[in-house]
Amino acid sequence: MTVQIREIRPADYRPVISVVDDWWGGRPMADMLPHLFFEHFTGTSFAAEIDGELAGFLVGFVSQSRAGEAYIHFVGIRPDERGSGLGRQLYERFFAAARERGCGLVRSVTSPANSGSVRFHRQMGFEVEPGDKEVNGIQVAADYDGDGNDRVRFVKRLAATA
Amino acid sequence: MTVQIREIRPADYRPVISVVDDWWGGRPMADMLPHLFFEHFTGTSFAAEIDGELAGFLVGFVSQSRAGEAYIHFVGIRPDERGSGLGRQLYERFFAAARERGCGLVRSVTSPANSGSVRFHRQMGFEVEPGDKEVNGIQVAADYDGDGNDRVRFVKRLAATA
Repeated sequence: MTVQIREIRPADYRPVISVVDDWWGGRPMADMLPHLFFEHFTGTSFAAEIDGELAGFLVGFVSQSRAGEAYIHFVGIRPDERGSGLGRQLYERFFAAARERGCGLVRSVTSPANSGSVRFHRQMGFEVEPGDKEVNGIQVAADYDGDGNDRVRFVKRLAATA
Repeated sequence: MTVQIREIRPADYRPVISVVDDWWGGRPMADMLPHLFFEHFTGTSFAAEIDGELAGFLVGFVSQSRAGEAYIHFVGIRPDERGSGLGRQLYERFFAAARERGCGLVRSVTSPANSGSVRFHRQMGFEVEPGDKEVNGIQVAADYDGDGNDRVRFVKRLAATA
């Protein structure tokens, strides 16, 4: 089995968008992934292939307003590869890309209902930022992404390059 | 009447997100505007206020992958202000911000069904890029933003600063 993590390309858009709702258990996620991320943020967005087939992806960027900050917008892992370490590999590749671009801080947000994502971010060394409400015992920012869309806000300081 | 165009702020997120579907005639657009744009792209995103009230906004960024390119992601104008020149003012403010950041090219996409947007972009000096299909006499990239979401792709070269 060969795992390859590489920069995302515009040609990845269709394969990704055609599976993303399925990978998220039928939730309609495609609207969160317009084509633009596959054109304009390719240096900080990655595809994971196993034996040449798409098995995961990460879309992120360097903040244009906040010096030294990077942001992970969207991650998808093929259901049969959950728990295999692919998410960790994608995140570590992103951390390296962020460091190369002068970032010392990475942020990300997730829904408090997504307990797998909350656990994963904690395992990856993210801390939960204080919010204005608690859901399932976790601090959230209420209505952060619009009415009813509470978000857990994660932040991680990157260690200096070894 | 006082028109003010200013950089967008995180605090603009709720006012914008609460009106955007209405401004778009009831179409569910809010998913296209996650909070992140109001945090990380504030230097190239703008709010227009008339007598202190939100009357329009533009969300855009500088491409991180393509040197010298900027991209306009989303624009909303309050229905009673359509045709008033507010869209033009927002675009010109964006062009100036893009030029300051070394950009010579601006891109944007729109749905071919949005004839007002197609007309507006042409008036603003954008050209339509060749596509792989024609809809309503306009070249489009088929399924550009996912199945059934054809897009007219606009491009405009910015004149050097006067």
